[in-house]
Amino acid sequence: MKAEIIAVGTEILLGDIVNTNAQYVAKSLADMGIFVYHQSVVGDNWERIKKAYETAFERVELVITTGGLGPTKDDLTKEVAADYFGKNLMLDEASLESMKGYLLGRNQPITEGNKKQAYFPEGAIILENHHGTAPGCIIEEKGKILILLPGPPREMMPMFSKQVIPHLSKYQEGYLVSKTLRVCGIGESYMEEMIKDIVEVQNNPTIAPYAKEGEVTLRITASGKNLEEAKALIDPMEREVRIRLGNHIYGEGETSLEETIGKLLIDNHLTIATAESCTGGLLAGRIVNVPGISSVFTEGVITYSNSSKIKLLGVKEKTLEEHGAVSKETAVEMAEGVAKLGNTDIGIAITGVAGPGGGTKEKPVGLIYVGLYIKGNTYTKQINFKGDRQRLRNFAVTQALCWLRKVLMEETLKKKSIR
Amino acid sequence: MKAEIIAVGTEILLGDIVNTNAQYVAKSLADMGIFVYHQSVVGDNWERIKKAYETAFERVELVITTGGLGPTKDDLTKEVAADYFGKNLMLDEASLESMKGYLLGRNQPITEGNKKQAYFPEGAIILENHHGTAPGCIIEEKGKILILLPGPPREMMPMFSKQVIPHLSKYQEGYLVSKTLRVCGIGESYMEEMIKDIVEVQNNPTIAPYAKEGEVTLRITASGKNLEEAKALIDPMEREVRIRLGNHIYGEGETSLEETIGKLLIDNHLTIATAESCTGGLLAGRIVNVPGISSVFTEGVITYSNSSKIKLLGVKEKTLEEHGAVSKETAVEMAEGVAKLGNTDIGIAITGVAGPGGGTKEKPVGLIYVGLYIKGNTYTKQINFKGDRQRLRNFAVTQALCWLRKVLMEETLKKKSIR
Repeated sequence: MKAEIIAVGTEILLGDIVNTNAQYVAKSLADMGIFVYHQSVVGDNWERIKKAYETAFERVELVITTGGLGPTKDDLTKEVAADYFGKNLMLDEASLESMKGYLLGRNQPITEGNKKQAYFPEGAIILENHHGTAPGCIIEEKGKILILLPGPPREMMPMFSKQVIPHLSKYQEGYLVSKTLRVCGIGESYMEEMIKDIVEVQNNPTIAPYAKEGEVTLRITASGKNLEEAKALIDPMEREVRIRLGNHIYGEGETSLEETIGKLLIDNHLTIATAESCTGGLLAGRIVNVPGISSVFTEGVITYSNSSKIKLLGVKEKTLEEHGAVSKETAVEMAEGVAKLGNTDIGIAITGVAGPGGGTKEKPVGLIYVGLYIKGNTYTKQINFKGDRQRLRNFAVTQALCWLRKVLMEETLKKKSIR
Repeated sequence: MKAEIIAVGTEILLGDIVNTNAQYVAKSLADMGIFVYHQSVVGDNWERIKKAYETAFERVELVITTGGLGPTKDDLTKEVAADYFGKNLMLDEASLESMKGYLLGRNQPITEGNKKQAYFPEGAIILENHHGTAPGCIIEEKGKILILLPGPPREMMPMFSKQVIPHLSKYQEGYLVSKTLRVCGIGESYMEEMIKDIVEVQNNPTIAPYAKEGEVTLRITASGKNLEEAKALIDPMEREVRIRLGNHIYGEGETSLEETIGKLLIDNHLTIATAESCTGGLLAGRIVNVPGISSVFTEGVITYSNSSKIKLLGVKEKTLEEHGAVSKETAVEMAEGVAKLGNTDIGIAITGVAGPGGGTKEKPVGLIYVGLYIKGNTYTKQINFKGDRQRLRNFAVTQALCWLRKVLMEETLKKKSIR
């Protein structure tokens, strides 16, 4: 089955609010194997809403609207639906009663507008609203299914999950299964090169790369008659992709880079401390994102000034004089220093020129050094980035974490091979 | 002039990401008095993208797309546009060169996919991308204007504000002027109460409040025949709102809370250090956002374990035993300790239960204490929050900054009045 989502509301057209409903409904439908080829937004206008119904039903059997069920005159989705299907609007006593109860519970009087919310196109299946005064409804006619939902997410989402999904499940033919692989350490276009030939012939399963802040995700989506068939189509494709991208794949689904690293640290009983200059705590912030990390992460420092690098981390004045605060030498001493300060197995440090000021010919804005200390061994990595201060710092942290993961995996592999 | 916005990307149709671009573009156009009657989303599919162009241009003169300019095979908006207007794709050497520079700066090789990004429909006006490899373009033909923008918001937004808006201004009829006031320390609904009577009779200018992560913004928008007329309408409304909300208004436009605080610190020659537990560096990260902050912010620490609170900050074991790590007593000792460690005028500390685990009856998940030390005086604030770990930590940092600003203003006022 194919579906379209129509959001109705001038406030969306004016950009006053973001249309998060479309994302929620689209995701829920995708999970049921119902394909959405179009989403649209129209204002609270009779002709445009009717035209939107017509256009959508020319393309698909299932149309879902959000918004336009409110008590005011410019809430029109039900009225236009009745017109579109040539039906009368009938009062639903039950809806009126529960609405009275809902308003009574809030010491609010029932208005004429509210009463309008209890009228539905004749024969419609009514969807109860337990979080507001606007019930939704489902109209099924001549192979067309129109589902009208309220606009406020807190009213729409439970109505969708508890009432719409069970209703739609009987139409669910194919199953769509997706698997997301998370990649770091290579750019989107470089990754694309590595799997170009597969992507070119993609059909079922399909492969969709998506880049965001120094990370890339790769979504493999297969459709099949049943779950098993769909999954069976994904597996060989995933194996092939994994052969191509190897260690660049750090996780699956919603797994974050910091979770992957957290697991590596916890599994290998490695404690870590962080020292940051230009990233000002963002690295520690990412690591602390991981629930249960406290067993391996005890402390971090932000040493923004030279004096604090010396005082807290024991960076040598000589090093700062000769190489500067932004240098691989300083990065290494910061990493060693913070591991010593925290008495941890690992110390990781970031120092760089975040800009907008402070750049020189030799050390331009965007030059970043990452220092790493692991049980006596030290490593450094240089990062160059162009972009604003905030992006630079997020990018630096992601690259540092990505590199930490790489080194950790090599180190722990060595250890295992020695055993 | 009327416009439509088409977002292109299967990841939006599948509900993987929210289409925030549509909101940004719609709002920007509304501010220019350009009306958007339809927004739509289509997948990375040649026929459907072309059909979307055709449908949109049947209704309006201006069509703006976001997405589909990437380096991969399924990025098609330019290719389909060339087909739609019957034009060839031509290489733009300048774009290729700046792309090479951009990639070189990141030690990334230029790929075939990247080269594709330097081809544009013949005669197109090219929009430089300073934040990625995908330039946009404007095609003007037979009274139709098609503007192709990249999908990543960080690339699209500056391209739109710096290059598209100036280009479109020549089509602008009426003038819309907006002024945004930034509020913190009160909830959205409470703020609405304070200005209810103004909002109820709003017409021109209009007032629109938005809430986001513990902050509220208030947008005043006026329309006039010319800029002066529109501005003249805003001023009295702004004065009235400022009388109502007073000190809760911390800034205007894009000014961030941390910038406001940074200015307060720098103007009053006050140095600051941060100590964090559950927020794991996010507070320092927000402060370090401010360019030039290094003159007052020298260091911060993340003391995630009790031992590091004792070792780095000199928190008393007795305090931790008697009151626990999450207590106002510990928060104060952390604040005093970090001010001493950094030899700063101010120390600010956050300790709390971020969850998901670790909550008790007495100290549930979401209980947070902020400790503040200012030149010998100490203050504490308790925050209670319901929500997931990540939102809780962002909320805690915002509330801590908001409170720091309030105390700083009171303190610096006292000082001034003493003089």
